[in-house]
Amino acid sequence: MLTDTTREKLKTVSTATLSTALFKRGLRNQFIQDVRPLKHKGRNMVGEAFTLRYIPAREDLNRIEVFQNRAHPQRKAVEECPPGAVFVIDSRKNPRAASAGSILVTRLMVRGVAGIVTDGGFRDSPDIAELAIPAYHNRPSAPTNLTHHQALDINVPIGCGDVPVWPGDVVVGDGEGVIVVPAHLADEIADEAVEMTAFEDFVTEEVLKGRSILGLYPATEDRTKADFAAWRAAKGR
Amino acid sequence: MLTDTTREKLKTVSTATLSTALFKRGLRNQFIQDVRPLKHKGRNMVGEAFTLRYIPAREDLNRIEVFQNRAHPQRKAVEECPPGAVFVIDSRKNPRAASAGSILVTRLMVRGVAGIVTDGGFRDSPDIAELAIPAYHNRPSAPTNLTHHQALDINVPIGCGDVPVWPGDVVVGDGEGVIVVPAHLADEIADEAVEMTAFEDFVTEEVLKGRSILGLYPATEDRTKADFAAWRAAKGR
Amino acid sequence: MLTDTTREKLKTVSTATLSTALFKRGLRNQFIQDVRPLKHKGRNMVGEAFTLRYIPAREDLNRIEVFQNRAHPQRKAVEECPPGAVFVIDSRKNPRAASAGSILVTRLMVRGVAGIVTDGGFRDSPDIAELAIPAYHNRPSAPTNLTHHQALDINVPIGCGDVPVWPGDVVVGDGEGVIVVPAHLADEIADEAVEMTAFEDFVTEEVLKGRSILGLYPATEDRTKADFAAWRAAKGR
Amino acid sequence: MLTDTTREKLKTVSTATLSTALFKRGLRNQFIQDVRPLKHKGRNMVGEAFTLRYIPAREDLNRIEVFQNRAHPQRKAVEECPPGAVFVIDSRKNPRAASAGSILVTRLMVRGVAGIVTDGGFRDSPDIAELAIPAYHNRPSAPTNLTHHQALDINVPIGCGDVPVWPGDVVVGDGEGVIVVPAHLADEIADEAVEMTAFEDFVTEEVLKGRSILGLYPATEDRTKADFAAWRAAKGR
Amino acid sequence: MLTDTTREKLKTVSTATLSTALFKRGLRNQFIQDVRPLKHKGRNMVGEAFTLRYIPAREDLNRIEVFQNRAHPQRKAVEECPPGAVFVIDSRKNPRAASAGSILVTRLMVRGVAGIVTDGGFRDSPDIAELAIPAYHNRPSAPTNLTHHQALDINVPIGCGDVPVWPGDVVVGDGEGVIVVPAHLADEIADEAVEMTAFEDFVTEEVLKGRSILGLYPATEDRTKADFAAWRAAKGR
Amino acid sequence: MLTDTTREKLKTVSTATLSTALFKRGLRNQFIQDVRPLKHKGRNMVGEAFTLRYIPAREDLNRIEVFQNRAHPQRKAVEECPPGAVFVIDSRKNPRAASAGSILVTRLMVRGVAGIVTDGGFRDSPDIAELAIPAYHNRPSAPTNLTHHQALDINVPIGCGDVPVWPGDVVVGDGEGVIVVPAHLADEIADEAVEMTAFEDFVTEEVLKGRSILGLYPATEDRTKADFAAWRAAKGR
Repeated sequence: MLTDTTREKLKTVSTATLSTALFKRGLRNQFIQDVRPLKHKGRNMVGEAFTLRYIPAREDLNRIEVFQNRAHPQRKAVEECPPGAVFVIDSRKNPRAASAGSILVTRLMVRGVAGIVTDGGFRDSPDIAELAIPAYHNRPSAPTNLTHHQALDINVPIGCGDVPVWPGDVVVGDGEGVIVVPAHLADEIADEAVEMTAFEDFVTEEVLKGRSILGLYPATEDRTKADFAAWRAAKGR
Repeated sequence: MLTDTTREKLKTVSTATLSTALFKRGLRNQFIQDVRPLKHKGRNMVGEAFTLRYIPAREDLNRIEVFQNRAHPQRKAVEECPPGAVFVIDSRKNPRAASAGSILVTRLMVRGVAGIVTDGGFRDSPDIAELAIPAYHNRPSAPTNLTHHQALDINVPIGCGDVPVWPGDVVVGDGEGVIVVPAHLADEIADEAVEMTAFEDFVTEEVLKGRSILGLYPATEDRTKADFAAWRAAKGR
Repeated sequence: MLTDTTREKLKTVSTATLSTALFKRGLRNQFIQDVRPLKHKGRNMVGEAFTLRYIPAREDLNRIEVFQNRAHPQRKAVEECPPGAVFVIDSRKNPRAASAGSILVTRLMVRGVAGIVTDGGFRDSPDIAELAIPAYHNRPSAPTNLTHHQALDINVPIGCGDVPVWPGDVVVGDGEGVIVVPAHLADEIADEAVEMTAFEDFVTEEVLKGRSILGLYPATEDRTKADFAAWRAAKGR
Repeated sequence: MLTDTTREKLKTVSTATLSTALFKRGLRNQFIQDVRPLKHKGRNMVGEAFTLRYIPAREDLNRIEVFQNRAHPQRKAVEECPPGAVFVIDSRKNPRAASAGSILVTRLMVRGVAGIVTDGGFRDSPDIAELAIPAYHNRPSAPTNLTHHQALDINVPIGCGDVPVWPGDVVVGDGEGVIVVPAHLADEIADEAVEMTAFEDFVTEEVLKGRSILGLYPATEDRTKADFAAWRAAKGR
Repeated sequence: MLTDTTREKLKTVSTATLSTALFKRGLRNQFIQDVRPLKHKGRNMVGEAFTLRYIPAREDLNRIEVFQNRAHPQRKAVEECPPGAVFVIDSRKNPRAASAGSILVTRLMVRGVAGIVTDGGFRDSPDIAELAIPAYHNRPSAPTNLTHHQALDINVPIGCGDVPVWPGDVVVGDGEGVIVVPAHLADEIADEAVEMTAFEDFVTEEVLKGRSILGLYPATEDRTKADFAAWRAAKGR
Repeated sequence: MLTDTTREKLKTVSTATLSTALFKRGLRNQFIQDVRPLKHKGRNMVGEAFTLRYIPAREDLNRIEVFQNRAHPQRKAVEECPPGAVFVIDSRKNPRAASAGSILVTRLMVRGVAGIVTDGGFRDSPDIAELAIPAYHNRPSAPTNLTHHQALDINVPIGCGDVPVWPGDVVVGDGEGVIVVPAHLADEIADEAVEMTAFEDFVTEEVLKGRSILGLYPATEDRTKADFAAWRAAKGR
């Protein structure tokens, strides 16, 4: 379970920093590849993964009428995704048809969902870009999802942008992209990332003052450690 | 022939909505893949397709001197494209050399052409982005078109971004991308898309008020139909 | 050696114009493919290439501890790159892990380096976009470079975006992308590009006034040559 | 249920002919893309699809020890796949690690399974090529599947080579590749394909004798229909 | 016009040697990329290009019935291609549907056509592989061409595998692939390639005897020139 | 240094088995991707890596005359590669021009080199396929290497097919592909692979007799261990 404390911490760190923390634990492949924010609003997206799995569409099973069925997994998933979760779609990295459009994304936003990610593309992307819900995709894609996608499973483990996404994993998005933190590591990764961020902020200030990175980043000189301790004390971090 | 009425209607609907209308008629592949606006100005591009076909360049046939020839198909096409048309280039999805640059695009703009699309790339793309003519491409590309492209045919059927484009087809571009509506369907598709847009606008308003998409989108509940009728009456749409 | 005069000239011309000047000399492949500015600030990046070569990472040679080594080529290169140079990284067109992050790029900026280019991706890309140093990459990439890259050689000839980059070549970046001018041609290419730019500016003005491109671009009519001479006299160019 | 009659018919027709029969019914996307036989032995592979779904591997969940678990889905699936079925693996079109190796494929063969297909690659591919079980993949791949794949679900609908594969669909492979016939159409498609094959054999003979394809293929001339009727009578087909 | 003399010469040289001869004349892009023989029979394919252009298929224009039309460009082209020519298809490098199948290729063979090339794929590829006509494609592809291709133009300039192919260019295929020799250069390229082949055969013999390539290949030592002259005299070449 | 003992052991094991042994040590990326034997002759290729690095060719530096220079790195490398080594070329995964041709490969063969690998393509590939030296590439490629490649460095660390190759690493090729064993691990990996191969051979025999893989592979049942011990005793392995 994602605690409020961890959620708040993850709002203050970058996907780059989280990548390094995961790399140190042998997890090298948690950054969703080739996915970008439709429009970043400066705040991180954080939430537990709630997933939707698509398979390739067969024409006879994906006529326009299928949406008449209230149990259609795409529509059902949109109504069932918990507030605070991130809705993650496995579109098999295929952006040639949409994964979803502005009406469904608006519904997710109204329902309090924390964000939406697909390794395909969204339609109505200019509208979605203006909504107050973070959204990440590969590229805009106008064709209805029925053209190439069939929604199948709700909240099963999936792949998204070459990354394994297990329901309940903690998904974090910033202006750079989206990373998936395994559920059982979320607390410790958040803690470590907050520490690393403090150090990186300190280093950035020093570098802007003209200091060399040698001995500073990483902190191989004792002086660096002392300076950082002083900085933390001064900044209250 | 694209009528003024249909042109005006198509200025008010999205490529996503048009995709769905075409999908209902069995046309699943009319959205030009992997092409984007250099800078969207908020208005749709609408016009009949006027095409230019490139083949791979052979070095001896594509020296810098070829542009001295007034009959060079690229230059000829730019002077012949009718005002109100959309200039569509088949660049074989190759953005490694330019399809055109700012001077030619400026000339098209001055001549009243409605827009320009390539499945390759434009050079001088920062300048083109600021022109008052919509332009869509895959990515910026500085090298002269002679490097990889030889202009060959004017106004023949082509492929562009995996989509068939027949001269006279109606090309519509918005902030998402570009779709090609077969000429004989333009009027009925425009009518249907206007209707669909009204419904989608109604649905969006309802969703923003907190209404579930089940029964609403699509309108499987009678109440939805009644609400929509009332909304249309109130809005005069 | 890049002279100040040539450097200043190259700040006033586009990569598109430079591409054409190189094309005329039989150099068809100097524009770095599929690389874009993180955020273009309106000024050209110009400098001599200082290179860094990556090879694929082997896990045992690329643990997080390797950065403790002051001689690590990535860190060493960042401290050694001359002010005024452009730092160019051969990332084998692999953006799945970062080529560098904001701290190193900040250090380069503070040291007076003219810009940075990779055919991979940067991490902390939103921060880098806001720095006062031009940066070009394929796409944002949060994972630490150790994930897929091992820094190996400093200032050797490399490939970047399918282009040969020899140390000392003159690298020019604008809002469109990055081009590599062989060192021995820099002066003459700069001269020619300045001349071409004057002509293109003249042509653009004429086209905006409504003049046809036939006879104008290229200047196959005597009238064009006369008009251009008059324009130059009037403009003092 | 795949009947013996239909199975036998499908052994005598090509994936090309089946593609056309499916195309006539609006099913345009049933041929598994970019998959080939390791070594074709001249007989068709025919059987009902039994599926295995992979997602990207997370390192901590895919250590070498996981195979100690008898319930590991890859091993479990190999023991559960019914004799006569075709084992189809969704490897997300990723051949960078193996989907399976010769020991598992040998076990499938011994158990009477009709064939195996992956849109990734097999390891021990030279050995598998010599086994008496048809196998289709993208390319050889030595790395253990744990490197990039995690076996997850058994006998759920999957994608394979961009094609939807539903458990029970009838999978047919020949020297060209693999096609997926929806279960409910298997009988009628088999019947039609047998008819089409007779006609194509007749046409081939006529063409070899020097007859033009015009009027012959398709049979738009009455003479063709008469000749074919005579041929069928003579051949007893 | 391809003379019999030149045709015979081109049957004795490799596409590699022809590539070099073209490279010396500044033609760097005449080898059709990513195309291979279905089954090489040890003899070169040589003939003048006769072309067929495909564009992406629009569903309503490519129903199965279109082949009833005797004027359908694919069928018409097969009947019109001159004996001795090579039939080259521009399939836009898309092998997801067939460019042609065994019946049409058989018809071309019977009509005396010298070979067939597509940058897409053939259906019935195991049958085509056994025919006595050289055929080159990207990969086997069972789906009917109507699925993704619309035959449009006969004998116009096209692209095939990124190479410009002008009707009448001389197309040569061997076990390695296919190269396109511009018509006006065919005689001189054939002559030069025959000379180069003699030298390469001599060099190969010398290398097999243990001689170093330095001074031998290229013939920078006088001794090499003398030895080659003696070899030619002895061999009568 | 590769000992004779280790070399002989590595001739008896597969790249698949070696992949697993490396995977157990955390090395997940040592199998060269998308490279295949031109024609496998049934024996493994084994030798220490001797490398050649290519960068993209610049036209003025890669005219046909450059081969007149005896110090040209491609020619020099071919004469300097030690007998028993494997010649590995970094072609940046670009098979659009050749990495080498039959004359150079013949020279390597005569000099006793153990094999040749490129992540690009060979020209004269049908001839190379028949030589008594193992050769691996991506696909045949007739154009001279000067078209896209410039040979630069001899025996430096390189990337080949996304794998790091350090001079002296032990390169093993079989019918499946090529794997790179870090030099310091060669002995222990060879030992372990020989052991694993014995077990896999035992397992294969058992599976062919009808035994389930559960408990057998891996050997989680005591009975398996006992049976294997008996098998080894009987077989003398």
